[in-house]
Formats: sequence, C-alpha cells, structure tokens
Amino acid sequence: MRTMNRNKHENTNIPLSMHKKYMQQAIDEAYFGMRNNKGGPFGAIIVLEGVVIGKGFNEVIATKDPTAHAEVLAIRRACGETNQFHLRNAILYTVCEPCPMCIGAIYWANIKKIYYCLDSNDASKIGFDDKHIYNELAKPINDRAIKMTKISLAPGLNLFHEWAVKKNKVLY
Amino acid sequence: MRTMNRNKHENTNIPLSMHKKYMQQAIDEAYFGMRNNKGGPFGAIIVLEGVVIGKGFNEVIATKDPTAHAEVLAIRRACGETNQFHLRNAILYTVCEPCPMCIGAIYWANIKKIYYCLDSNDASKIGFDDKHIYNELAKPINDRAIKMTKISLAPGLNLFHEWAVKKNKVLY
Repeated sequence: MRTMNRNKHENTNIPLSMHKKYMQQAIDEAYFGMRNNKGGPFGAIIVLEGVVIGKGFNEVIATKDPTAHAEVLAIRRACGETNQFHLRNAILYTVCEPCPMCIGAIYWANIKKIYYCLDSNDASKIGFDDKHIYNELAKPINDRAIKMTKISLAPGLNLFHEWAVKKNKVLY
Repeated sequence: MRTMNRNKHENTNIPLSMHKKYMQQAIDEAYFGMRNNKGGPFGAIIVLEGVVIGKGFNEVIATKDPTAHAEVLAIRRACGETNQFHLRNAILYTVCEPCPMCIGAIYWANIKKIYYCLDSNDASKIGFDDKHIYNELAKPINDRAIKMTKISLAPGLNLFHEWAVKKNKVLY
C-alpha cells in the first residue's frame, strides 16, 4: 500500500496540508452519517480547483438504496453542481478504498485522482467486504454466482441500430 | 455466450414467453429513453414474484449523472418500492450486459438472476465500451490509470473503531 508523501504530488500543486484538510472533511461526512444512522462509516468529497463541488456520506440504511455509497452520492452531486457528466479535473477524497461499484462510477465520471484513508482490509475487519465482487467481476459471466442468461430478441438489435444511426445524439 | 432455452429455467418456474415479455418491457424502456434524449439505448426492469417493482432507462444525458444507468435506477426504485436494501428474490431484465458499476450494484442488492439481450461486444460496436473498467478493476490499485494515494489520518482509524463498537447498528 502506498503512503502519501510530498514528492508524489508534484502534478497536483496541492500541499500535503490541504490534502489532509480535504480528507478530514470526508471523514467528517462519515462521522455525521454514521452517528445519525444514515449508513456505514463512509464519506467522500470531490474538489475541483480548490472548491468542494460534491460531498456525501453512506446513506444505504436511511434511504434503503444499496447504491447510496458516499462516492456515488458525491459524484452525483458534483455533476449536478457543475452541470456536466464528466469531472475530468476533479479529485476525490474518500474515507475508504472504493468498492468496485464506486470504482466503476469514478471511471465513468473520469475523475482525475483518488485519495483514500483506509483500505479494503480495514473495511473487511469491521464487516464491509467487497472482495467477492472483485472476484466475480474477474470471472467469465457464465461462471458468476448470480446467473446471467441471454435472451436474444430482434427489437433489441434494432434498438442498438437505431442508436447507431440516430442524428444529433449526445455522446457521453 | 449462453443463449436461453427452456431447459435452463427449471429453477425459476417462469415460462420462456414470460421472460421474453419482461425483456420486451426493458427494451421498451430503452427506446423511450433514447428517443426522448434521456441517455443511451439502455433499459432495465426488476421483477419480484411476477410484479414489476422497478424500471429505468439510461438518464446520463438528461440528468448529467454518470451513475444514472438503467440498472442502477431500476435497483434504486425497486428498493424504494419494497422499502428494503436487498432484492434477494428479484430478477433483473436488462437490455445489455451490465457494466462493472452496475454489476457492483447488482451484487450489493443481492439480485437473484440476470437476463440480458445484448452483450458488451454489441455495446462496444455502437460506442459503449466498458472493457477498460474491467481491466482496471483487475489491476493492483497502484497500477491503475486513475492514481490512488493513501493518506492515513488518525480520525479515520477512530471512525472505523467507533463503527465496530457502535450499539444497535443496522447491518447491511
């Protein structure tokens, strides 16, 4: 596991003291969510050019939404704040190493860099384990625990063709 | 790629004609979203004991939310409808093989089974490629394209300890 030091941040021009300040804000989000029974002890903030444009704490328990991870909520709000579906120059500070769902969201959002405080082993020790999802994603789809079965229907093929020839479509 | 036939569904007790009907509903969602410029040509529905409890089409363009994939929206709504963060006996019908973010969401939601109509190769041909995310997830975190750097702060460690000893916490 790589531990942060000043030399590794030459391309961000952000001093270590600022990184720590932002990480503390992500931790504060997590404390708030946990203590108010919103969800697990996870928080995240997204910073663009020195401004916090999105933040979130885990809300799985309060909203009954299994996708309401801190990182997903912070991304959703940062995109709403900036009115764009890409966050190319933004930095994510998250309490814990993101799960595969959140990594997927981070890549779709094109976030620039991730800082995290605790890793998946730390999370596993307190009951949050995502190793099984990493393992599943590495398998061919026919070998996964949740069975995936193909149903080929002509309207599905036509649908993709209609997208391919659609005029003035927005690409994302 | 496995193609559906009657023999593979003995454990669901749902006839092929019903699976096709549900898949057509997922395709209908996708057509609606695409033609109304909500997002790409993707749709999904979630069925529990013969009842559609959640549906969605891709809304990335309209909402500027990169996490607004059809499957994520259908899961979120199905959980809202049933007021639970698990969908253990639910079946997901989705137009296209889910991306890693959506697979993560599906596993967190504990969905029982997935049916899909088009696969990731079909999606790639019309400009939607998620292979890079699968590749990234398979790498050690220090080798990934989006750099991940650890910042260890004592309040983060204390946070996880507070969760571990928290009384009456909801486990999910």
